[in-house]
Amino acid sequence: LDLRAMEEAQARLDSLTKPPGSLGKLEAVARQAAGITGEPLPDLSRKAVIVMAGDHGVCEEGISAFPAEVTPQMVLNFLNGGAAVNVLARHAGAEVVCVDIGVNADLSHPGLVSKKIRRGTGNIARGPAMSREEAEAAIAVGYEVVAELAAGGTRVFATGEMGIGNTTPSAALLVALGGLKTEEAVGRGTGIDDARLLHKRSVVERALEANRADPNDALDVLAKLGGLEIAGLVGVILGAAAHRSLVVIDGFISSAAALVAGRLAPECLPYMIASHRSLEQGHGGMLETIGLAPMIHMDMRLGEGTGAVLCFHFLDAAGRIMREMATFESAGVSQA
Amino acid sequence: LDLRAMEEAQARLDSLTKPPGSLGKLEAVARQAAGITGEPLPDLSRKAVIVMAGDHGVCEEGISAFPAEVTPQMVLNFLNGGAAVNVLARHAGAEVVCVDIGVNADLSHPGLVSKKIRRGTGNIARGPAMSREEAEAAIAVGYEVVAELAAGGTRVFATGEMGIGNTTPSAALLVALGGLKTEEAVGRGTGIDDARLLHKRSVVERALEANRADPNDALDVLAKLGGLEIAGLVGVILGAAAHRSLVVIDGFISSAAALVAGRLAPECLPYMIASHRSLEQGHGGMLETIGLAPMIHMDMRLGEGTGAVLCFHFLDAAGRIMREMATFESAGVSQA
Repeated sequence: LDLRAMEEAQARLDSLTKPPGSLGKLEAVARQAAGITGEPLPDLSRKAVIVMAGDHGVCEEGISAFPAEVTPQMVLNFLNGGAAVNVLARHAGAEVVCVDIGVNADLSHPGLVSKKIRRGTGNIARGPAMSREEAEAAIAVGYEVVAELAAGGTRVFATGEMGIGNTTPSAALLVALGGLKTEEAVGRGTGIDDARLLHKRSVVERALEANRADPNDALDVLAKLGGLEIAGLVGVILGAAAHRSLVVIDGFISSAAALVAGRLAPECLPYMIASHRSLEQGHGGMLETIGLAPMIHMDMRLGEGTGAVLCFHFLDAAGRIMREMATFESAGVSQA
Repeated sequence: LDLRAMEEAQARLDSLTKPPGSLGKLEAVARQAAGITGEPLPDLSRKAVIVMAGDHGVCEEGISAFPAEVTPQMVLNFLNGGAAVNVLARHAGAEVVCVDIGVNADLSHPGLVSKKIRRGTGNIARGPAMSREEAEAAIAVGYEVVAELAAGGTRVFATGEMGIGNTTPSAALLVALGGLKTEEAVGRGTGIDDARLLHKRSVVERALEANRADPNDALDVLAKLGGLEIAGLVGVILGAAAHRSLVVIDGFISSAAALVAGRLAPECLPYMIASHRSLEQGHGGMLETIGLAPMIHMDMRLGEGTGAVLCFHFLDAAGRIMREMATFESAGVSQA
């Protein structure tokens, strides 16, 4: 991060008519944005949420409340502008970029970014989700989508995803990389009952047993236990850092991608901004493991990037604070 | 609250393409807005933050990091649009209404609502802040400001305040009405050091001792230990409830007003929305005492209504979710 730009931003913040530091995370975000972009007052008006969509072979174990056909149905909903993330992105003035990175259906739509690596992952309860090469290719997809948007002036990204069943691989990643216990990491996803929750835990345990991924090799863990959309988001995060852009991390699945990205390249961690704390059981522990503190506690558990997009508002607010507030000097206010 | 309107809002929420309840507090806010206004899809576009300003005799005990002259200086800053609350209100599309309810200076500005009850309170470490009649008059001021705005179509209010020294009476109210210990309730305000914090605690203890307010008589507690701006905000909250409007509660001082309002008239509690959890030490316990759960955790501690105004964004987002999202039927998405 550019320390001089951060110092300039801090000096500006401390000149404004408020007790020093009293705007808390709004000030932290302003400093962070300066450090990332190298500009004390960066233009962050162009924002995009990248929604990676992929299917999961583990759905055949019956771990989700929704049928797998909902993944392609929701992709069309994103493309038609009707999903929650579309509404919240319009409200935030952000673009929704929907990427088919591994949906188990043939999709075609003028707005879709078609980058399918394969039609869904393998069933992690029986073997690897994908090969190491497929994981690398999925990471490259995310990286390139960001590179293209960054070339067009986008400097703020949010991670979003759609993939029925994807809290299961995310929990497996959390156990394998974060060292949490299965009963801490596995939650109710889109809303399963107690019996299905116990079953889901046993599926995650079987996945860990069947794959024996090397916890010191994050790419191995990602390939064996992850998902195509999760790997794509790892690439989004790495791409944002490489392009000196902010990346706002959504909920449980996006945080699993952030966990992997941070292990693959710890230099990308300062480019991340945690948005919300999801109601999904393992999310608090996941964020602590990564070292992120969320801004909002809204009991959300939808994914798609919805929590991250809601927090774009705070980036805009921080920018306006920097630009529009009076200083102690200009307003004739006495200091402490 | 209008239960039928809440049921209609809930039915709409459950028809939208997302797992039931997965938008958490955004859904809760949509239900609450329906219940308060009696309309499943209320128009909440007109919003105002009411910034009540008053001075505090207890400042002569040296409990604040800032000199008391900052209160009138900041009132002019509000009126000139340069304070943090002005910037965030512009960002939220909300009006700032600044009320002189007890500033210890002669203020005159075309934008100021001049409703001075007296020039600052008495020093609570030695006697009552104000008389019971003055507290009632201050409540009436807040109520009437809301009534006038509600007549013009405003249906969302935020509580804001300015008054150097006002975390001290707020902490005293929290101890007297909430039963917290002084060391739990008294914090650093705008930023005092350890020595001054210990002194501030002893000042609050002297105030409790000197006034012996009746904890079963919230108006007695407010008059003896409170502040003019706090009493004004009690009126704002009562006025919002009476006019079937939402009232978003800001930080520590605003929450002290909410605590008093809830004791005076528990019927007003369902009209409140907690915005943020402040960094001020007693705020978490204060919100728990009232029964409110904050939406954002931004480590803010500025007051003015800044945290409440930041949360206006979520009310708008909830409204757009209700209006703009596709249903399972319209989007052809399978249900669980």
